[in-house]
Amino acid sequence: MPTYKAPVEDVLFLLNDVLGIERYNNIPGFADATPDVVKAILEEGGRLCEEVLQPLNRVGDTEGCTRHDDGSVTTPPGFKDAYRQFADGGWVGLSADPKYGGQGLPHTLSAAMNEFVASANIAFGMYPGLTQGAIAALTIHGSDEQKALYLPKLVSGEWLGTMNLTEPHCGTDLGLLKTRAVPNGDGSYAITGTKIFISAGEHDLSDNIIHLVLARIEGAPEGTKGISLFVVPKVLPTPDGGLGERNALGCGALEEKMGIHGNATCVMNYDGAQGWLVGEADKGLRAMFTMMNEARLGVGIQGLSQSEVAYQNAVTYARDRLQGRSLTGPKAPDKPADPIIVHPDVRRMLMNMKAFNEAARALVLWTAIKGDVSHRGSDQAERQAAEDLMGLMTPVIKGVLTDTGFQNTVAAQQVYGGHGYIAEWGMEQFVRDARIAMIYEGANGIQALDLVGRKLAANGGRAVMAWFKEVGEFVSEHKDDEAMAPYVGPLKSGLDALQQATMWFMQNAMAKPDNAGAGSTDYMHLMGLVALGYMWAQMARASLAALDGGAENASFHETKLKTGRYYMERVMPEAQAHLARITSGADSLMALDAESF
Amino acid sequence: MPTYKAPVEDVLFLLNDVLGIERYNNIPGFADATPDVVKAILEEGGRLCEEVLQPLNRVGDTEGCTRHDDGSVTTPPGFKDAYRQFADGGWVGLSADPKYGGQGLPHTLSAAMNEFVASANIAFGMYPGLTQGAIAALTIHGSDEQKALYLPKLVSGEWLGTMNLTEPHCGTDLGLLKTRAVPNGDGSYAITGTKIFISAGEHDLSDNIIHLVLARIEGAPEGTKGISLFVVPKVLPTPDGGLGERNALGCGALEEKMGIHGNATCVMNYDGAQGWLVGEADKGLRAMFTMMNEARLGVGIQGLSQSEVAYQNAVTYARDRLQGRSLTGPKAPDKPADPIIVHPDVRRMLMNMKAFNEAARALVLWTAIKGDVSHRGSDQAERQAAEDLMGLMTPVIKGVLTDTGFQNTVAAQQVYGGHGYIAEWGMEQFVRDARIAMIYEGANGIQALDLVGRKLAANGGRAVMAWFKEVGEFVSEHKDDEAMAPYVGPLKSGLDALQQATMWFMQNAMAKPDNAGAGSTDYMHLMGLVALGYMWAQMARASLAALDGGAENASFHETKLKTGRYYMERVMPEAQAHLARITSGADSLMALDAESF
Repeated sequence: MPTYKAPVEDVLFLLNDVLGIERYNNIPGFADATPDVVKAILEEGGRLCEEVLQPLNRVGDTEGCTRHDDGSVTTPPGFKDAYRQFADGGWVGLSADPKYGGQGLPHTLSAAMNEFVASANIAFGMYPGLTQGAIAALTIHGSDEQKALYLPKLVSGEWLGTMNLTEPHCGTDLGLLKTRAVPNGDGSYAITGTKIFISAGEHDLSDNIIHLVLARIEGAPEGTKGISLFVVPKVLPTPDGGLGERNALGCGALEEKMGIHGNATCVMNYDGAQGWLVGEADKGLRAMFTMMNEARLGVGIQGLSQSEVAYQNAVTYARDRLQGRSLTGPKAPDKPADPIIVHPDVRRMLMNMKAFNEAARALVLWTAIKGDVSHRGSDQAERQAAEDLMGLMTPVIKGVLTDTGFQNTVAAQQVYGGHGYIAEWGMEQFVRDARIAMIYEGANGIQALDLVGRKLAANGGRAVMAWFKEVGEFVSEHKDDEAMAPYVGPLKSGLDALQQATMWFMQNAMAKPDNAGAGSTDYMHLMGLVALGYMWAQMARASLAALDGGAENASFHETKLKTGRYYMERVMPEAQAHLARITSGADSLMALDAESF
Repeated sequence: MPTYKAPVEDVLFLLNDVLGIERYNNIPGFADATPDVVKAILEEGGRLCEEVLQPLNRVGDTEGCTRHDDGSVTTPPGFKDAYRQFADGGWVGLSADPKYGGQGLPHTLSAAMNEFVASANIAFGMYPGLTQGAIAALTIHGSDEQKALYLPKLVSGEWLGTMNLTEPHCGTDLGLLKTRAVPNGDGSYAITGTKIFISAGEHDLSDNIIHLVLARIEGAPEGTKGISLFVVPKVLPTPDGGLGERNALGCGALEEKMGIHGNATCVMNYDGAQGWLVGEADKGLRAMFTMMNEARLGVGIQGLSQSEVAYQNAVTYARDRLQGRSLTGPKAPDKPADPIIVHPDVRRMLMNMKAFNEAARALVLWTAIKGDVSHRGSDQAERQAAEDLMGLMTPVIKGVLTDTGFQNTVAAQQVYGGHGYIAEWGMEQFVRDARIAMIYEGANGIQALDLVGRKLAANGGRAVMAWFKEVGEFVSEHKDDEAMAPYVGPLKSGLDALQQATMWFMQNAMAKPDNAGAGSTDYMHLMGLVALGYMWAQMARASLAALDGGAENASFHETKLKTGRYYMERVMPEAQAHLARITSGADSLMALDAESF
């Protein structure tokens, strides 16, 4: 059975040594997050994940959720008790506004904790995870009355939330959505329609579920310009926040899925359910994007999370499993065979995972800090710059961390040989669970288009230029530093390839947009390569400084330096293949008629 | 629900136009395989797969196999009837020796049919598939008596066969195996031990199951030099081939697996079961390798098969699903949205699959012809040359076709968006089923080591040098042919990279074997890239010739030429990344202590 250990030491290294979180003490919440407080919080959160959530991961997969004839849904055995502990520990509202009962800590801390939760039990983590998105949407777009009514209950975790976008005929293309909203005359609307793939749509973890639902108000324009966002509670709250009547909505069926069986994925039927407009009419998509951006970072973290837990178990197996001998002579001559970790090809799989996980964690936290600055910073220019970079990196984190995270679960399963295919060993569950992250909250191809079609061009390329400048300055600053040479040289060649690709788009995609679409996924992965490489270069700098300063945990830093070198030598070369594909353009892709496939 | 159409036209193009099967008419079986006969056989076999086997694919997954208290195993509903049709159609013995009731046709035809069967229903196909390996092992290594007793029953499909290698503590490292064989004094042995992961180990498809079992004769040397192969029937045959007493063996449990639920994967217990030595004592591994090589090609075909069926369904979905608009303006303005096949990034996924599937099919058939020549050819030098090339390409086919085949099932699932994750759409089953092919019959890392550590060096590099010469001559022959330039140029650059990598191993891996292990998987994939590119170049030449000759199916050939260009422009660039990783050597992989992971 798999185990899990939260990578607390690594997060502390990133926050303190690499990202210098103390620099942000002028931002609300950060001053409270002293190194000691952060350490205590992460250790406590880590323990909860290791001891309470992880042991429920397999039962969640095997038992799944059950829908009863009355439409109610039971979560897997143990989930309800675990959720009570989770909510009582204040984890739902860790970074929420203290005005509504939150702890007001940096969202960056929530991001770190979200990784731990998802590594331990991704299906469980989705229940409070979606609630974080609902809190964000209501905080930014809700009326004062809505905030007062819903936020305290959501922040405390007493109630949970959902997002309702997808319909049978529309996922990516929300302009096609049909769910309709008819004014009731009292300020509320009657919502009618069917939503599918609704994670945590119905369950027994909380007394109420607050659905945020996209619908079209009668007479609204067609397409995406006529979509509004509504808050539609499962149980209508009384004005004092108690539970009133049951609303006219329910779970029509549970989807049978490849994985994340512990989360209830519902077909939701709205039959004239009472809902209230959130934000302006016909501007629902903008409000939903607040949740989506939050959710996309969360999904990227899920990709990392499965890679991390799968890696940890693959390492344990590779150290224990005796099979064959090292090519350079027996390493455990007293045993019938050597542990398979002696074999270079096994190490190749493990090092790929390790080099990815640590850089991906750094990139998540780097981006989460931008998020905190963009929401809470006092300086408008600084907020804007942070928002630019967060917006640029969001599709990269979602797309690259889930694609590569999934590949890594497959590699970790491979380390187990035949046992990897057997359910009781638990590795195949990581593969099945990780797979969804490439699909939901915008399939990864959509992330790539968001990056290339929207984020690159926005504001005359302001975001990407700022990021190129930052990375380029880092390269210049360290170009004569011999100890940094193994990191800076490959980072520069990756950056050069990325800049060439960007230039190629500027020259070739304006007149012929298919050239952008044809290169979008490669571009996203190329940017991911460079972004992760930039994280490695920063980690190397921090570890070199720590070693210079006589750090106690020298072996931690030496391992960082070696792992970073691996990334530069073995992962970064992929940049040239991406560049070659991007600059080959769209012709070979568009050459066939649809009938010729 | 997924559908399937056997790619008969493509196989006929490969056999007739590309590989020139008529050139082998001097080899037994080939003269009977006239173009008309081959076409009729493939069409009939294709229909069986499309109409009988494919409709059972999902029920096999959802119902799986059931073990009863008496140790008997029931296959999924419909499998038994379907198997009866399969055996009655003579498909088990299609290429088996007519002396034992086979049809004696080229094994190349079986390879083509095996793809169809596995595409339609991979779990079903494993029952007769393993029997083909048992037939091969008994044909080459069995005594005349064993052949007379078992082969007619296996060739007719009345009985089925298995391979029993793996034990709980040993998979890759067979030297550790513990199952023991004690002479009974009557020429037979008493076999005792536990085998795991035994595909088709017990079932209700046939009255008898002929197990081929690796065991160690009492007093035999330790390690791989003391392993013998035994034939151990489930029911002891009477001398006239009837059914006698039940043997002391049985299925102790069924494994719960990620996929291929329709195949019974058994823990097999041998409790002094009566068995007979096949071939020489202590030389069992050699005999088992006959089955393994057969099986490895078969597993490579499985990788292709899942990629092909997943591709076919992804194309259908991409043509039907309306979502969003083309970047270059509406393509279906009369509809609410365009079919998603208009989007370059969707085409990228489809073209990757198509370009792989067609070249992989060519490589399978190219290698299968080498197999036929090596087994049946009259000229010893020709046989040896064919065997060299088949041996060289076997690990490439197993490793590359299953790695890439799996990736393609993931991409095909991605085309479906959220529906890809839902069981009833059937795409996630392809992913789960395809996953096993990367693991069994030697995990792909082992294939890479077999290639780099054994096949490259064997006989002073004779096989790889012969293949380099063949590909190099093809390149030289067409280097001034303008129409071939888009294919020959990239093929040459791929071949150059592969030759540089080979040279690098020669210079750097003799003294330091970890350098070979560290580059083995990249080398295998690099050789796969070039081998598939070579197939594309040959297909392009054949299609150009057909178009020059005024072929009727011009659009078929034009599509070939476009698909080949896609491969050269978008797939071949990966060669440089493989080369960079190979030549980075082992240092970055071996730098960490086992405890530092």
